[in-house]
Amino acid sequence: MSLTDDLALAQALADAAGAAIRPFFRAPYEIEAKTDASPVTEADRAAEQAMRRLIEAERPRDGIIGEEFGAVREAASRQWVLDPIDGTRSFIAGRPIFGTLIALMQDGWPVLGIIDQPISGERWVGAVGHGTRLNGEPVTTRSCRALDQAILATTGPQYFPGHSAEHFSVLGGQCRDTIWGGDCYNYALLATGHVDIVVEAGLKLHDIAALIPVVEGAGGQMCDWRGEPLTQDCEGDVIALGDPARLDDVIEALSHHPSH
Amino acid sequence: MSLTDDLALAQALADAAGAAIRPFFRAPYEIEAKTDASPVTEADRAAEQAMRRLIEAERPRDGIIGEEFGAVREAASRQWVLDPIDGTRSFIAGRPIFGTLIALMQDGWPVLGIIDQPISGERWVGAVGHGTRLNGEPVTTRSCRALDQAILATTGPQYFPGHSAEHFSVLGGQCRDTIWGGDCYNYALLATGHVDIVVEAGLKLHDIAALIPVVEGAGGQMCDWRGEPLTQDCEGDVIALGDPARLDDVIEALSHHPSH
Repeated sequence: MSLTDDLALAQALADAAGAAIRPFFRAPYEIEAKTDASPVTEADRAAEQAMRRLIEAERPRDGIIGEEFGAVREAASRQWVLDPIDGTRSFIAGRPIFGTLIALMQDGWPVLGIIDQPISGERWVGAVGHGTRLNGEPVTTRSCRALDQAILATTGPQYFPGHSAEHFSVLGGQCRDTIWGGDCYNYALLATGHVDIVVEAGLKLHDIAALIPVVEGAGGQMCDWRGEPLTQDCEGDVIALGDPARLDDVIEALSHHPSH
Repeated sequence: MSLTDDLALAQALADAAGAAIRPFFRAPYEIEAKTDASPVTEADRAAEQAMRRLIEAERPRDGIIGEEFGAVREAASRQWVLDPIDGTRSFIAGRPIFGTLIALMQDGWPVLGIIDQPISGERWVGAVGHGTRLNGEPVTTRSCRALDQAILATTGPQYFPGHSAEHFSVLGGQCRDTIWGGDCYNYALLATGHVDIVVEAGLKLHDIAALIPVVEGAGGQMCDWRGEPLTQDCEGDVIALGDPARLDDVIEALSHHPSH
């Protein structure tokens, strides 16, 4: 299977997920409805089912790891990793900055990733050796000469367990600005040269896999809080850098406990 | 001057601001460029100048209070209050969830407000006696039976001075979810029934004035952290409620110091 064929399938998966999600965006519903009937769950499930059907039809020997319906064919060397709606809270609140995440992993490493925003119609596609494109146009991260010039983004303070919130706030204090909210959309904006650093904690494989080809294909770098690669069994503490030259500065800030 | 005429002018102001802002959105620039030359500043100024020119031509006796260029004719009973880009950090980071805020105040009270998102093309218009409309369609807030069913939104933890961050986190702990980022867009989503509560601190008149007709025209309520109306010289500590029945719960949570 060529990468070109896999890219075409990945695009078709994103199309199918978007078509499944759009009817549920800003659909009226009672917040007290039981969780199983919430539009986010319905949208999540419908989008993942649509993608799984296509993979089963087109790549019946590939494995699938999906947020909603788990894993099949886990021993396969090729695995499709799916997060139908990353940023469910943004989705529920009607913000058009959530995303569908699609990755193809080969022998445990993502070689292709998509961040798709089905409301605005923005699609970031990254693949090893192909760079990163937003709706077909090449994009790159920007240079960042020092932390005090950096825009730092993260989804929310409540997602940092234990002392990691304090470590994050040390880094935030050294950056030009911290912006909140955004989920996967922050990594897409980093890949497009508008955000410099994204730091998060406790992400899962389905949150991370698609981001790596998008960020690294645009010239950025992703790693954990010690600078190590994000392997399939990492703890999900993530740094994304538009300018890899800032890696030591970020790790230094994150390792410096504020009360010491 | 009839409200219909004023609404037509306000729409023209939003059109002019959007046309001035769009060329600067996601424009490439060096983050280290001096502040005066940043695209946000250029976009802010161009948008406010475009709006002021229209007001000077169409309503030469009305006052203007603008974020960038200050006040003229402060003694006039009618004042146009302008914030060309509310959510500058979102704008700089390339997120399409900032907004242009336009209000008309009559004898110190906003009778007309617009929240305009010039990238997505979403425009919320609220006016006393006319309700609130999103792109011409009436919108309303939703009911919220208890805090544990509420989606709470605020722009960022760093905007709460002193102990108010702790008070906010007490409220956050009682709500179903807290979402971060968003600026004026949170109030627009509240007016459309997707967000239940917005709480912020230290806002200025130009941040607040346009929100009140939009939120209250949709059935919501805005007040300060003690439940008092947001007068022209208020301190800018703001509560917006989709369901006014939750007011006492929110005030109670905000007044309860976590360490007591």
